[in-house]
Amino acid sequence: MTKRMNVKPEDFLTLTQTGADWRDLDTPCIVIDLARVEKNVADLQAYCDRHQVKNRPHIKTHKIVGLAQYQMAMGAVGICVQKLGEAEIMAAGGLRDMILAFNLVGAVKLRRLTDLLQKYPDLRLAVVADHAAMLDGLAAAAQAANYPLPVWVECDSGHGRNGVTSPAAAAELAARIAAMPGLSLAGLFTYPAAGGRVATAKFLPEAKQLCQARGVAVPVVSSGGSPDLTREEGLKGIDEYRAGTSIYYDRAHIDRFGVSPDQAALTVHATIVSRPTPGRAIIDAGSKSLTSDLFGLSGFGRVVGDDSAVIARLDEEHGVITLSDTPALPYQIGDVLRIIPNHVCPVSNLFARAWVARAGKLLGQVAIDARGRVD
Amino acid sequence: MTKRMNVKPEDFLTLTQTGADWRDLDTPCIVIDLARVEKNVADLQAYCDRHQVKNRPHIKTHKIVGLAQYQMAMGAVGICVQKLGEAEIMAAGGLRDMILAFNLVGAVKLRRLTDLLQKYPDLRLAVVADHAAMLDGLAAAAQAANYPLPVWVECDSGHGRNGVTSPAAAAELAARIAAMPGLSLAGLFTYPAAGGRVATAKFLPEAKQLCQARGVAVPVVSSGGSPDLTREEGLKGIDEYRAGTSIYYDRAHIDRFGVSPDQAALTVHATIVSRPTPGRAIIDAGSKSLTSDLFGLSGFGRVVGDDSAVIARLDEEHGVITLSDTPALPYQIGDVLRIIPNHVCPVSNLFARAWVARAGKLLGQVAIDARGRVD
Repeated sequence: MTKRMNVKPEDFLTLTQTGADWRDLDTPCIVIDLARVEKNVADLQAYCDRHQVKNRPHIKTHKIVGLAQYQMAMGAVGICVQKLGEAEIMAAGGLRDMILAFNLVGAVKLRRLTDLLQKYPDLRLAVVADHAAMLDGLAAAAQAANYPLPVWVECDSGHGRNGVTSPAAAAELAARIAAMPGLSLAGLFTYPAAGGRVATAKFLPEAKQLCQARGVAVPVVSSGGSPDLTREEGLKGIDEYRAGTSIYYDRAHIDRFGVSPDQAALTVHATIVSRPTPGRAIIDAGSKSLTSDLFGLSGFGRVVGDDSAVIARLDEEHGVITLSDTPALPYQIGDVLRIIPNHVCPVSNLFARAWVARAGKLLGQVAIDARGRVD
Repeated sequence: MTKRMNVKPEDFLTLTQTGADWRDLDTPCIVIDLARVEKNVADLQAYCDRHQVKNRPHIKTHKIVGLAQYQMAMGAVGICVQKLGEAEIMAAGGLRDMILAFNLVGAVKLRRLTDLLQKYPDLRLAVVADHAAMLDGLAAAAQAANYPLPVWVECDSGHGRNGVTSPAAAAELAARIAAMPGLSLAGLFTYPAAGGRVATAKFLPEAKQLCQARGVAVPVVSSGGSPDLTREEGLKGIDEYRAGTSIYYDRAHIDRFGVSPDQAALTVHATIVSRPTPGRAIIDAGSKSLTSDLFGLSGFGRVVGDDSAVIARLDEEHGVITLSDTPALPYQIGDVLRIIPNHVCPVSNLFARAWVARAGKLLGQVAIDARGRVD
């Protein structure tokens, strides 16, 4: 169904510090296990293939051009980006098919949209919209670049963020887009509702039917999110899927969604810098490395090799670990801990570079190309 | 008492994009009001002068070389940095007196310490320690640079992070440092206990007395933290104070510590990109801009001009604002909101550049020099 190349992630990565040894690692830092990336990417692609759903990975998790290229080589139909800044980086890196999943509003953003389309005439870029007031601006920006812009109707199928809030409103906006010079209807687009997937599974087919009833063809229905990927309703009526976190996974997926800890491909390495009491260890990673995302979990990450340890508190640069009476690791000052973060996406965004490794061997460093591109 | 120059913050900042207009701002972005910075810096200095306490601002909040230089010109005796990466950036920017307030552990960090001291022979750098096992490494690293290294005894006076946990242990470690070739005792150092300031105010004089009882002179007692600065016990027995947040302040200080909203010097500017329902507005700033720090507050920031609005949820790039029935702002799509973040320090760390303004006039952009330097 999709093209497969006999490639590895490292074939697409520009590595620096290739002679480094594990002892050279300066903490805190992030380390990506490429064997796990390879398995996670292959698993996602195989799962999508099996369900005859197109795979369009979301790059906001890794923000690395080379990993996006690897995902494409493994069968992805394109990528998803969350912000225009990410689109600019990915286009500069050679990616040529992307959905920009964020409402573009205002003169500055629309000028950048035109610039991007003019700079890369072979770029296939689609955007989202959830209200008619945006359409004139999008059409003008695209026409200035002489580019017929595909626009997705973003649907709030229960997530409570943006998106039209009813199937009828989705059909109404779809009809407006389809009728608008300079724009075309890309399809229906949603991020599924946490705890309300049945609502999502109901919303989209209904919206599609209403579109068809008014003579508007819906080319593609797109959903996303790693948590819902393997749930019963997750792919119902879906043509294309956008999963981000699944390339690395994280503690939220392990503790809440049944993912194996062996699939966690990104860890934060942190050094124990103090043992003020028998029950307390201090590491050099705080909220500026691990983020304050709790996701309903207890503690700010999982210490690899000691499930009984609780990362109880983060100051900006300190992590306070509460140890059990019989910790599974020695916790000596100077020891380096590996930590699976609660939520991997914002962690990856905090670092300029990541180390990459395979089978216990350190390969080098890679730039996190779109780090900090929230604009 | 201290040197004062007739200067403004902008005298120390290297500005780019100086011709920009407010309409050119691309959101999300951060904007620093230099008139408020000026007042906040002057207030801190005057307060320290009035209490005859030396002012050593912590630069982890702003991470900008020029603002550190401005704080020095206004009377600071030096700066405090939290990580070696920050020390490297500040030294490269010309700062020459700093406390590095983090345990340096491991061969990589100690090699960098030597390198830093060798690179800047006129750098007056002091470090902290909270256990004797660190001292050999520190001494060797400093001796390799032929630098007599002042070391502070970090005391856990109730904050529950690192630090020796009793006045007796503080005196013991102080004596070890004072007796060690290549090191000298800088003094006693603490970050005060949240909700336990009385304990802090008791710990330090007791530790100092125990030091003196064994013939060890304590040159300086240092405390820190903007929240405790103006509290009754905050400066008791303290010779030098390290305040970081007070240069900008944030919502935690406004809502919890009685700071005026007019002192908030850093705001996140975000655009309303969707109004899916009458009660909901979506902005283009999420946890990758505002962070997930709640600090016990309700909502992820304060919308300037509408105290009734609640930033109820942050996804990575979306902020979901719940509006009251009678919102104080129009919340039209395309409107730019100014948001005072809950905790300003990690927000500043997320952006490569900040806009600076004074009296409603945009002056240009400044680099956040030590952004992301958690190493």
